[in-house]
Amino acid sequence: MAVKFELIKECKQTKARLGRLHTPHGIINTPVFMPVGTQATVKTMTPEELKDIGAEIILSNTYHLYLRPGSKLIREAGGLHKFMNWDRPILTDSGGFQVFSLGPLRKITEDGVEFRSHLDGSKHFMTPELATEVQMDLGSTIAMAFDECAPYPCTFEYAREALERTTRWAERCKKAHNRMDQALFGIVQGGMYRELREQSARELVELDFPGYAIGGLSVGEPKPLMYEVLDYTTPLLPADKPRYLMGVGSPDCIIEGVIRGVDMFDCVLPTRIARNGTAMTSGGKVVIRNAVYARDFTPLDHECDCYTCRNYSRAYIRHLFKAEEILALRLVTIHNLYFLLRLMEHLRKAIAEDCVPEFRKRFFEKYGYDGEEI
Amino acid sequence: MAVKFELIKECKQTKARLGRLHTPHGIINTPVFMPVGTQATVKTMTPEELKDIGAEIILSNTYHLYLRPGSKLIREAGGLHKFMNWDRPILTDSGGFQVFSLGPLRKITEDGVEFRSHLDGSKHFMTPELATEVQMDLGSTIAMAFDECAPYPCTFEYAREALERTTRWAERCKKAHNRMDQALFGIVQGGMYRELREQSARELVELDFPGYAIGGLSVGEPKPLMYEVLDYTTPLLPADKPRYLMGVGSPDCIIEGVIRGVDMFDCVLPTRIARNGTAMTSGGKVVIRNAVYARDFTPLDHECDCYTCRNYSRAYIRHLFKAEEILALRLVTIHNLYFLLRLMEHLRKAIAEDCVPEFRKRFFEKYGYDGEEI
Ligand SMILES: [Zn+2]
Ligand SMILES: [Zn+2]
Repeated sequence: MAVKFELIKECKQTKARLGRLHTPHGIINTPVFMPVGTQATVKTMTPEELKDIGAEIILSNTYHLYLRPGSKLIREAGGLHKFMNWDRPILTDSGGFQVFSLGPLRKITEDGVEFRSHLDGSKHFMTPELATEVQMDLGSTIAMAFDECAPYPCTFEYAREALERTTRWAERCKKAHNRMDQALFGIVQGGMYRELREQSARELVELDFPGYAIGGLSVGEPKPLMYEVLDYTTPLLPADKPRYLMGVGSPDCIIEGVIRGVDMFDCVLPTRIARNGTAMTSGGKVVIRNAVYARDFTPLDHECDCYTCRNYSRAYIRHLFKAEEILALRLVTIHNLYFLLRLMEHLRKAIAEDCVPEFRKRFFEKYGYDGEEI
Repeated sequence: MAVKFELIKECKQTKARLGRLHTPHGIINTPVFMPVGTQATVKTMTPEELKDIGAEIILSNTYHLYLRPGSKLIREAGGLHKFMNWDRPILTDSGGFQVFSLGPLRKITEDGVEFRSHLDGSKHFMTPELATEVQMDLGSTIAMAFDECAPYPCTFEYAREALERTTRWAERCKKAHNRMDQALFGIVQGGMYRELREQSARELVELDFPGYAIGGLSVGEPKPLMYEVLDYTTPLLPADKPRYLMGVGSPDCIIEGVIRGVDMFDCVLPTRIARNGTAMTSGGKVVIRNAVYARDFTPLDHECDCYTCRNYSRAYIRHLFKAEEILALRLVTIHNLYFLLRLMEHLRKAIAEDCVPEFRKRFFEKYGYDGEEI
């Protein structure tokens, strides 16, 4: 088995878990947040900077790399790790989410999905076998089974068909997968329907994957609904396997996910809002372009000791944004990722010390419980 | 005196000089190349990265900082060094070149230049006194006297008027300047006319500045003409003061400048072409977007040991450019600046070892003597 999950401790008051995921590329301490490097680079960052802020695993996108520069090219380069100069674990998504998001550009059949590239309109046919082959070519540490992510909202019938196809495709992925140094995770679907989540979990657990993702959430539904689905879905998954909630990266959703037993998270949110000039800070969001910061010579977050906060003022970062300087994007990206990675560290500590509810309360008192869409 | 130039050695075969410029922010080994940080940041780079590649001094632009974020704001921040987190020397240009480049947006009088901001069209009046005050507010290590840079080509009469005004303005700058921890350099003008260069140098040397720039070159004239002007201008300047050739940064022009007795250079060229995907390498320029590099898994420059060349392939950098990733700009900027800073190091070594002509010959055999406009 390529990866092994070690469950260290379960929280006494919540379903939060402390763990370690052992992989061929090193150990990941869970709960973990995975910065997203869509196109074989976490936007604006070098691998060394990611290590400096404590990133233990990153995510990259199968769909994007398949189209450009091509997974065969990356294989020739010696794999994704070598290509992008990152020697810690990499998780690649299945490409399913991107392909299904293409809307009118794709056509689903039992065999797979025909779609047109968003880059040049070229026609492609993605199958569970091809998605698996692409990820084997990339040589990621953890590959994901090709799934059908149903939209929100959708009917019971649509969600059922999508989940059953996801199960059949998961079997085909498993059959096609033959890289012993790579783990293949299954993805639980079923929309917002408890009965369907139970069916999906039951079918996938039977296939005995070394880890499970919870897909089809963070697709536009209200946060309370996502929490409700998590409430009944995580207990359906084996305790000795890691659980990964896809596409979730706001601090509040991460905390709510952790207390419901989720071990892994990924999201473009911290890096994307950074490039728009929004910083996550201990006191809530800071929109650095605002005029109020023009002469604010204090750091982004007075509680933060990241590279950005140790060396630069809000006034300087604001100037860089106004002047459209690339360093602006770098500095806020570093801070936001550090903020989330430090949040995960604090959560792990809180689990170890059995004070998760107190930590959660303290965090929200300062950060605010923001109503943003997930 | 804020800065002191120590002339260590003069080349036996050429006019090249080896020196050290002692400043309140540290020692600069000359001949030196100064990376340009127009808006209080060397585009894409952090100060630490600049130090890593050996930058000993950077240049920043008075005109740009005066308009945004404003020199008073930077003064409030504790000066430009603190604002941008760079503790080594900074040279600020006078703003003259930018203001005079505005064309129809500016009007010259004896008192100063009325111009409209390229950012918002607002009206400003720049005088020698204001240019000096702005630079004192910025607190740069070396300030430049406000000059009138004549265009190329221009008539003898125009060039004469511009140089004489530059002398009168230099006197006013000197009178207005009262920061003891900051040096003020004069700028020799005179266009492509020997007689005028002699007049300008004579008048400025009389004012006894601690350093002299040669302005009005690299403004579109053919390279041989620039070399000819340098041939007769550098000997007019005192041997015990540093000589700075403004706006020159291609490897061939730097070498030709050094053998004519120039000590300091600056140019946006290495950073600007980097962002367009052009690398300076020991074998000449590499345009990394070219399809020929798609599967080239070798470094940008096999003779280079910069961060980029140690860790990334041409194929990866090309992918980043095609995917419009910011890391692409960072990686080639690092390489190009390192390439030029290493060239300066090699030139200093060649002067120390009396083998400048041989070094020059070897360099051009590999790099090519490119015919690009300066
Ligand atoms: Zn910070
Ligand atoms: Zn290099």
